[in-house]
Amino acid sequence: MSTSQEDNAGADLVLAERHGAVLLLTLNRPDRLNAWTFALEERYFQLLDQAEADPEVRAVVVTGAGRGFCAGADLSDLQMVSSLDKTDVELAAPARPRERPLSMRKPLIAAINGAAVGLGLIEALYCDLRFSTPDAKLGTAFAQRGLIAEYGIAWLLPRMVGQSRALDLLLSGRLIQGQEALAMGLVNRVVEPEELVKAAIAYAADLAALSSPNSMSLIKDQVFRAMDSDLPSAIAHAEGLMIESFVHPDAAEGVMGFLERRPPNFQPLALT
Amino acid sequence: MSTSQEDNAGADLVLAERHGAVLLLTLNRPDRLNAWTFALEERYFQLLDQAEADPEVRAVVVTGAGRGFCAGADLSDLQMVSSLDKTDVELAAPARPRERPLSMRKPLIAAINGAAVGLGLIEALYCDLRFSTPDAKLGTAFAQRGLIAEYGIAWLLPRMVGQSRALDLLLSGRLIQGQEALAMGLVNRVVEPEELVKAAIAYAADLAALSSPNSMSLIKDQVFRAMDSDLPSAIAHAEGLMIESFVHPDAAEGVMGFLERRPPNFQPLALT
Amino acid sequence: MSTSQEDNAGADLVLAERHGAVLLLTLNRPDRLNAWTFALEERYFQLLDQAEADPEVRAVVVTGAGRGFCAGADLSDLQMVSSLDKTDVELAAPARPRERPLSMRKPLIAAINGAAVGLGLIEALYCDLRFSTPDAKLGTAFAQRGLIAEYGIAWLLPRMVGQSRALDLLLSGRLIQGQEALAMGLVNRVVEPEELVKAAIAYAADLAALSSPNSMSLIKDQVFRAMDSDLPSAIAHAEGLMIESFVHPDAAEGVMGFLERRPPNFQPLALT
Repeated sequence: MSTSQEDNAGADLVLAERHGAVLLLTLNRPDRLNAWTFALEERYFQLLDQAEADPEVRAVVVTGAGRGFCAGADLSDLQMVSSLDKTDVELAAPARPRERPLSMRKPLIAAINGAAVGLGLIEALYCDLRFSTPDAKLGTAFAQRGLIAEYGIAWLLPRMVGQSRALDLLLSGRLIQGQEALAMGLVNRVVEPEELVKAAIAYAADLAALSSPNSMSLIKDQVFRAMDSDLPSAIAHAEGLMIESFVHPDAAEGVMGFLERRPPNFQPLALT
Repeated sequence: MSTSQEDNAGADLVLAERHGAVLLLTLNRPDRLNAWTFALEERYFQLLDQAEADPEVRAVVVTGAGRGFCAGADLSDLQMVSSLDKTDVELAAPARPRERPLSMRKPLIAAINGAAVGLGLIEALYCDLRFSTPDAKLGTAFAQRGLIAEYGIAWLLPRMVGQSRALDLLLSGRLIQGQEALAMGLVNRVVEPEELVKAAIAYAADLAALSSPNSMSLIKDQVFRAMDSDLPSAIAHAEGLMIESFVHPDAAEGVMGFLERRPPNFQPLALT
Repeated sequence: MSTSQEDNAGADLVLAERHGAVLLLTLNRPDRLNAWTFALEERYFQLLDQAEADPEVRAVVVTGAGRGFCAGADLSDLQMVSSLDKTDVELAAPARPRERPLSMRKPLIAAINGAAVGLGLIEALYCDLRFSTPDAKLGTAFAQRGLIAEYGIAWLLPRMVGQSRALDLLLSGRLIQGQEALAMGLVNRVVEPEELVKAAIAYAADLAALSSPNSMSLIKDQVFRAMDSDLPSAIAHAEGLMIESFVHPDAAEGVMGFLERRPPNFQPLALT
């Protein structure tokens, strides 16, 4: 990794720790329940960029330091923004789009250790999967702040939990906990606090060991495209990819590993 | 409210009762399990129009009088229709589109106190949320009557419960009850009969007290648009709305209420 | 049914057995967990074509012989394919599209008696409903073989179980069993092994006895169209179909049967 000054600015805002092929990122403003700031985002996105480029990283887990996952946009940033006029707000937009995590080619798993509210919930939704503790509180909060369904949550949430539950969560802003979130498909697994990060890393390590990085990258892209396409297009797209996959070394290795009853030895994700 | 003769025609077909900022509407043909007629619809839609225009109404609950919510289209209307030729059917179409409730800018909650079948189920699906009793029976019925998936239910139902369960309900027309409907995301809450309407009103009263009417109106629109749009469009749309929301008085009030740990005092929904 | 030589080629690969108006098809390569081959597919699709054309068949159930439902594409076929160059693969494409079951006008129900993995899972997803045993193992497997989300599963799966669970199943390829599949909406019912096929046939027999074949065919088409259309289009489409349905004999029969409290006597599906 580069150690240039630019890369290390705000390094303590998000901690990075490698566990084998899994990169663990920890949002690290625990005294503010990891409330989101432009600086924290900048650091988080830098680390995601680096993870994409690093052939030794095959999956990423993101969690929060302390009691919360992310309590939302930091009000000090927000108050600054609301004192600006529209032009200033547009200028304040960060270099990378806020939905940067959605375009990750490697799997990204949220380990929701506590409150994930507003923008904090959206950051969790931008991950591919979500693990949470039983007591973590998840909520949208926007309607209760006079705000709107920000950054694509009006699109994402109904596609995870169905339209009826999405409207409940978005209109009321009420907080739900692990089991309810699990039942509605908002989180994939509920794990006791002391085991949460361990369980998310173990899941990610399985992806790293057993799933082809090339396959995962293509499948993520397929799922997002298919959300916005019709079935014939999705089938036609899959057909082309399938033919390409048959001649990719990972397909032969996948079959060999399966026949020889051993873990496959897949190639790292090729840089684009 | 206006008291002109036109407005009061069929007034007893749907009862209206204010509970603070919540308007409770009761479909009122209990001897027919509130089967739907053109006249009942006309009155219901009038009341929805009035609720939209009334600054003191912030949320609406709809339930049924007696044992049922709505048993479907009244067969006397239906038999009349099937004795007509196509041109007559077209002429019989009501002034407002049948899906009028979907365009409500204020939240609309169904309190399903009993049978919600066929068009009766569709009316419940046109609401934003659904509360039901454990024993309420919900079903599509269309295939068992030689009919088709009417009025957008083929679009709505899969987006609430997933394609697999939607096909089950639409092909078989079988009746399901509260807990099964809850598990599949068709209803949001199951409440004992004596508490049902009270619980729906309490939920609606929370929306009225804690959620910005402007936010709720925009969020409903966002969710419906997002169902039919791609993710980049949804994000771009949200971006524009977000910048506007920052300069709306409700955003400042939302932040102040939050910081001062008091309920916000949001503005009524502006008339369009 | 025709008994020409062409029609009976590979007849033992899929067994066909009539139970009243329900056709039971059994994938029959039990020593290979019914792994999919071009020959088995050819026979299966022939039988589906015949079922569509046969006025006495009103619903179809498909299950697997022995311990599995379908363990995926047969590796001998797959290895053949991966030794070919791209042009050969294209030439090897079967006459009917692989998603043939999706265009069935009659209801098709999978009775998942054991492993349904990879292409085997996709075949189950191509059915309208899925019944499974508690111990049946369902999984995508593709990423673990270096493959991609084949044949439209990237489109189908999120629309059945939501985006979050779909990514879990597609990225990890992990196997899930009946109860978990039921909770996420992947299967519609979990039934003990000895009752599985019986229960699926009973459900199908109810469709055959109580639901209009014309209605079911139109409703299936509506649901699939609605997945790819916006709500106003779905409503406009339903409006046209509804007016046509009112003058179809099944509508009058549906109402009469209902009023006379007897099962309706619907017409067989008209040939296209």
